[in-house]
Amino acid sequence: MERILLAHGSGGRLSHELIKTLFQKYLGNPYLNQMNDATLLPGKEQLAVTTDSFVVSPLFFRGGNIGKLAVCGTVNDLAVSGAIPKFLTLALILEEGLPMDELGRIIESVAQTAAEAGVAIVCGDTKVVERGSADKIFINTTGIGYITDRLVGPEQIQPGDEILITGTIGDHGIAILSEREGLEFQTPVVSDCAPLNGLIDAFYMPGVKCMRDPTRGGVATTLNELAGQAGVSMLLIEEQIPLSPSVEGACEMLGLEPLYLANEGKALVIVAPEVADEVLLNMRAHPLGRKARRIGHVQEGKSGLVLIETPLGGKRIVGMLEGEHLPRIC
Amino acid sequence: MERILLAHGSGGRLSHELIKTLFQKYLGNPYLNQMNDATLLPGKEQLAVTTDSFVVSPLFFRGGNIGKLAVCGTVNDLAVSGAIPKFLTLALILEEGLPMDELGRIIESVAQTAAEAGVAIVCGDTKVVERGSADKIFINTTGIGYITDRLVGPEQIQPGDEILITGTIGDHGIAILSEREGLEFQTPVVSDCAPLNGLIDAFYMPGVKCMRDPTRGGVATTLNELAGQAGVSMLLIEEQIPLSPSVEGACEMLGLEPLYLANEGKALVIVAPEVADEVLLNMRAHPLGRKARRIGHVQEGKSGLVLIETPLGGKRIVGMLEGEHLPRIC
Ligand SMILES: Nc1ncnc2c1ncn2[C@@H]1O[C@H](COP(=O)(O)OP(=O)(O)OP(=O)(O)O)[C@@H](O)[C@H]1O
Ligand SMILES: Nc1ncnc2c1ncn2[C@@H]1O[C@H](COP(=O)(O)OP(=O)(O)OP(=O)(O)O)[C@@H](O)[C@H]1O
Ligand SMILES: [Mg+2]
Ligand SMILES: [Mg+2]
Ligand SMILES: [Mg+2]
Ligand SMILES: [Mg+2]
Ligand SMILES: [Mg+2]
Ligand SMILES: [Mg+2]
Repeated sequence: MERILLAHGSGGRLSHELIKTLFQKYLGNPYLNQMNDATLLPGKEQLAVTTDSFVVSPLFFRGGNIGKLAVCGTVNDLAVSGAIPKFLTLALILEEGLPMDELGRIIESVAQTAAEAGVAIVCGDTKVVERGSADKIFINTTGIGYITDRLVGPEQIQPGDEILITGTIGDHGIAILSEREGLEFQTPVVSDCAPLNGLIDAFYMPGVKCMRDPTRGGVATTLNELAGQAGVSMLLIEEQIPLSPSVEGACEMLGLEPLYLANEGKALVIVAPEVADEVLLNMRAHPLGRKARRIGHVQEGKSGLVLIETPLGGKRIVGMLEGEHLPRIC
Repeated sequence: MERILLAHGSGGRLSHELIKTLFQKYLGNPYLNQMNDATLLPGKEQLAVTTDSFVVSPLFFRGGNIGKLAVCGTVNDLAVSGAIPKFLTLALILEEGLPMDELGRIIESVAQTAAEAGVAIVCGDTKVVERGSADKIFINTTGIGYITDRLVGPEQIQPGDEILITGTIGDHGIAILSEREGLEFQTPVVSDCAPLNGLIDAFYMPGVKCMRDPTRGGVATTLNELAGQAGVSMLLIEEQIPLSPSVEGACEMLGLEPLYLANEGKALVIVAPEVADEVLLNMRAHPLGRKARRIGHVQEGKSGLVLIETPLGGKRIVGMLEGEHLPRIC
């Protein structure tokens, strides 16, 4: 009998297969089939909608907690879709026995982060299951934003476009992993968890063609998705990819590839070459974009193929995440 | 140390306390503070929004399954708010090891029920947690509907209004309980789980003042909420409350009070006395309203007080649900 595997929730290849063969098959319609970070409801509504559940373990980590994450994740899916995040719903599944003060700290973070991002929690739901039927707390947030005239999406991407990232990669993945496994680094790794709508407002200009937040599956999987949706190939320059020294050290020590690690406060941004410099300058002028970099470009070639050029000049294929090494990262 | 109890998810008194002392306290704003089934976003949006997570156990029961329930519950919160349900999001938390065919049957039900209710699933999310960290599958649906000119809400309720129910009560609660405990009745109890937007469209007319779906906490808790929000008292007539013979039998056998049992396809409807007969006739003409009844009325008196008149003419107070006898009913 076929069963659900952890890898079906990895954000990688098996996640994509499940979405295509089950959810799109039964539920498909022109809205759902957009298959982007948020769904645009144009026409009368002029809204963007997105939903994410958060099951991160542990609940509290350097740089955030499940409450902050639940607001940032949904705000970011709206923001990278070119929408202005406005309203969030908040649904909690609590395990019997959860300490009330932990719940309180999580809700305080939700409130704080929502205020920071300029969104209002408009309704909620609270279910409790018996001890052992859930792991402490799971949170769903669904976000509604206003559609803007920002024309972004994978269908805008063309060969020649530049690939930018708003900062270092892998920080969230390593922060969770080190919390979970009790790893100590000289400089502790802090999750990058942050609402990106302010940063995006600061750098967006016509010529920005597509944005996506490289969460589960990391930069590699996200670029594979985009390259496939756009029908193009992409080339990354390994030396250009920004890594904090502690993440680099942790990855070497643990044999992890940073391109597959989750980020919760970064955006991949594909831009027309003529605006790349200006967009980069604007990113770097914002506190959340100081380490922004050009990391590669879009090219003709096999649809969906992502290559990386190593420091020695060789090239290798960077596929989607296979399997699942770090479950419950968000 | 104070901890979360099952009763915090009952929909009863402790649920209300938690919402007031924690969620409203930290997250409160004019939208959230509406505290109705769905939140109206008037002005530019003209939308209603609602969210619910579903953790029912077992997943499959007579009359439905968690997928059907997840669509009906959210459609109904929009419909009783006077809105036209249009868009649903679908977020799944799956336990590693969930049989793929069970997931498939659940998603088929989601598709079928969404089609029946006339709503589109517009986006989703799929997380997987390790075996033992969740119980098979939890589903969140968030719903968006169009606001209509139906002026309904607890603030419309006045002394003299009539209290109607669209059919028998307690069917969902007993269906889940008997599935869970392996109870057998002569006539098996089937959950009433159904999308109510069609029924509501069929009976709504000006003079209908307030609607609410008596889910967790049942009719008793829901009327307590409404009486409190409206600042009125209510009197129920016990003999008038429609019960199927098997639910009545089950309640006698198990010592359960049907007024506290969950319903997933019923609406409580408060109407001006001059339209009560016509609304009832319209309800009964619809397949989901055949057993509709007038079960009491609104009166002056202590705000939030709900009384019931017994067949012998005595009156007793019907409070909110205390504690939690049937967890994970939805
Ligand atoms: N259960 C589901 N039913 C319908 N659509 C789904 C489901 N799960 C995911 N999707 C759709 O698949 C696409 C990818 O979803 P995914 O959750 O990977 O994106 P994301 O939210 O940007 O990433 P993350 O969840 O890591 O933050 C989205 O367009 C989403 O609407
Ligand atoms: N965690 C939460 N944060 C903010 N608001 C909440 C939260 N939980 C519930 N609420 C609000 O409290 C009110 C009552 O919620 P509740 O879930 O009991 O209503 P319901 O969805 O109609 O019932 P049910 O969940 O049984 O179907 C709603 O207005 C809801 O928005
Ligand atoms: Mg995303
Ligand atoms: Mg997301
Ligand atoms: Mg609810
Ligand atoms: Mg309701
Ligand atoms: Mg509900
Ligand atoms: Mg998602």
